[in-house]
Amino acid sequence: MYRKEIKVLDCTVRDGGLMNKWQFSKDFVKGVYDSCVAAGIDYMEIGYISSEDQFSHDEFGPWKFCAEDDLREIMGDNNTDTKISVMADIGRIKYDDIRPKSESVIDLFRVACYDYQIDKAIELAHHVMDKGYEATINMMAVSKVSERALNQVLEDVANSRVPIFYLVDSFGSLYSEDINNLMQRYKSALPGKTIGFHGHNNTQLAFANTIECIIDGANMLDATMLGIGRGAGNCPMELLLSFLKNPKYKIEPIIKCIQDYIYPLKKDIDWGYFIPYMITGAQNDHPRSALAWMASEHKDDYLSYYESVVKNKEI
Amino acid sequence: MYRKEIKVLDCTVRDGGLMNKWQFSKDFVKGVYDSCVAAGIDYMEIGYISSEDQFSHDEFGPWKFCAEDDLREIMGDNNTDTKISVMADIGRIKYDDIRPKSESVIDLFRVACYDYQIDKAIELAHHVMDKGYEATINMMAVSKVSERALNQVLEDVANSRVPIFYLVDSFGSLYSEDINNLMQRYKSALPGKTIGFHGHNNTQLAFANTIECIIDGANMLDATMLGIGRGAGNCPMELLLSFLKNPKYKIEPIIKCIQDYIYPLKKDIDWGYFIPYMITGAQNDHPRSALAWMASEHKDDYLSYYESVVKNKEI
Repeated sequence: MYRKEIKVLDCTVRDGGLMNKWQFSKDFVKGVYDSCVAAGIDYMEIGYISSEDQFSHDEFGPWKFCAEDDLREIMGDNNTDTKISVMADIGRIKYDDIRPKSESVIDLFRVACYDYQIDKAIELAHHVMDKGYEATINMMAVSKVSERALNQVLEDVANSRVPIFYLVDSFGSLYSEDINNLMQRYKSALPGKTIGFHGHNNTQLAFANTIECIIDGANMLDATMLGIGRGAGNCPMELLLSFLKNPKYKIEPIIKCIQDYIYPLKKDIDWGYFIPYMITGAQNDHPRSALAWMASEHKDDYLSYYESVVKNKEI
Repeated sequence: MYRKEIKVLDCTVRDGGLMNKWQFSKDFVKGVYDSCVAAGIDYMEIGYISSEDQFSHDEFGPWKFCAEDDLREIMGDNNTDTKISVMADIGRIKYDDIRPKSESVIDLFRVACYDYQIDKAIELAHHVMDKGYEATINMMAVSKVSERALNQVLEDVANSRVPIFYLVDSFGSLYSEDINNLMQRYKSALPGKTIGFHGHNNTQLAFANTIECIIDGANMLDATMLGIGRGAGNCPMELLLSFLKNPKYKIEPIIKCIQDYIYPLKKDIDWGYFIPYMITGAQNDHPRSALAWMASEHKDDYLSYYESVVKNKEI
């Protein structure tokens, strides 16, 4: 589908890093960056921006922090058409740590929040906008949000200056009819704003739901190379670009990146379609119990995992 | 979605066998059969029925032929609620080899054909119906069939006694809007008949397209355990059952079967989401070049495969 308003955001390093605490080599991150630039990707989200006093550099790699020097080591002044995005979690960033846009290679801050944090998210988004950045709000876990709470969120966002709001299928539990319903609500509540979509692939619907969102009018789309991301992962970039007909996007650099950098990670990181992730998705649950199971020695004992989940539900 | 008319058909052994020439152990086939019965699956398609003089028993396992004795070794008289299906390719079966239903444990013949074989397919379907079996016609590769040819096929099927006609996404190349369009055409051309769907997962849309077909009125749905099947494979049974709300279906036996029998096959058979299969799907091509690539020593050289396909297209 060709629609010139559509923007694609690669979050390979940011969401993939949830699986290895952002312990990627510089060579890897540079490889992803170069591929995004060559493929014509609109935004590359390189990591989380977090306070140094909240997380340890011994435990977490540099893309949990996104220090300016580390960014510039990858991309210099980033004189390309690919903008740089970072994600900020509410409560894990200090306003004073955010330098003015004129001193940073970052273009976009994406503020991740839960529904009950929307006031803080809008405040942070306004703060970074006032410092010269672009901003989005990505409200997570919408599949668990009540109708009343969602209405309140949408009203607050409508009254804000934040131009982009994301539909986020955190648990990979939404079906196409859920997408249609939510997109309808987001669009009618937020006239003039851009709607984005971030999916998870627990039930193999991340790409399908992205297409559904495109049909329903979403214009900012997240994807990752070979779908790498937490648990079941995200919408695969190579599929999204094969669907979009805008000639500015090139699929060949993505395939090269997958071959050189992403596929080799499969030996160490179990992202993708695995039965435990599928079970949490189908049940609309947070994937944490599945992630713990997949990190255990009995990760291939799907039946015991299923039984443990069903028993927990019945209690 | 609960709709009592919906029937689920497992084609794990039949479609999965395309990847290993049906060289499954008896233990494996019995395991799949027992799981289908325990899970409440309506039909299990156990293989192809083919003439003994067309294929060699040295090269192909018993489920390329589905001899009555081999069937009964797995299921006895099949005194269960799960019916037994076989697939027949046009030109690879002799009418005289088909015994009357009263002498067979087979319940359903599914006749696979291309659009230009529809007359022969209807003749074969009528033949098996007259011998007491149920019958479907599965017209393959609809994504390559012209509008005029499809109209002719639908008219011929409408005028036949065959009660079930399948929408088959052979190349895994259909998007949801294609599904909506084709389902609309099939339904309006075939009043009173049941529409089935068989998807392939090249672009991770087999499950999504199955849901789309359900919404659009399809009532006979193919799936396989863990999506095993030719190339990228099929709609995963565990996902389909997690979506259907009919309490007669049990997911636990499917998960047990995957753990005990299907997952171990992953070591030897590369079905599922791989870049070469994704490329043929996105390009609406037969997967044969991708299958050959995946069987070669350079199977992980995705970029060379992509370049070879693009160059072939440009010639």
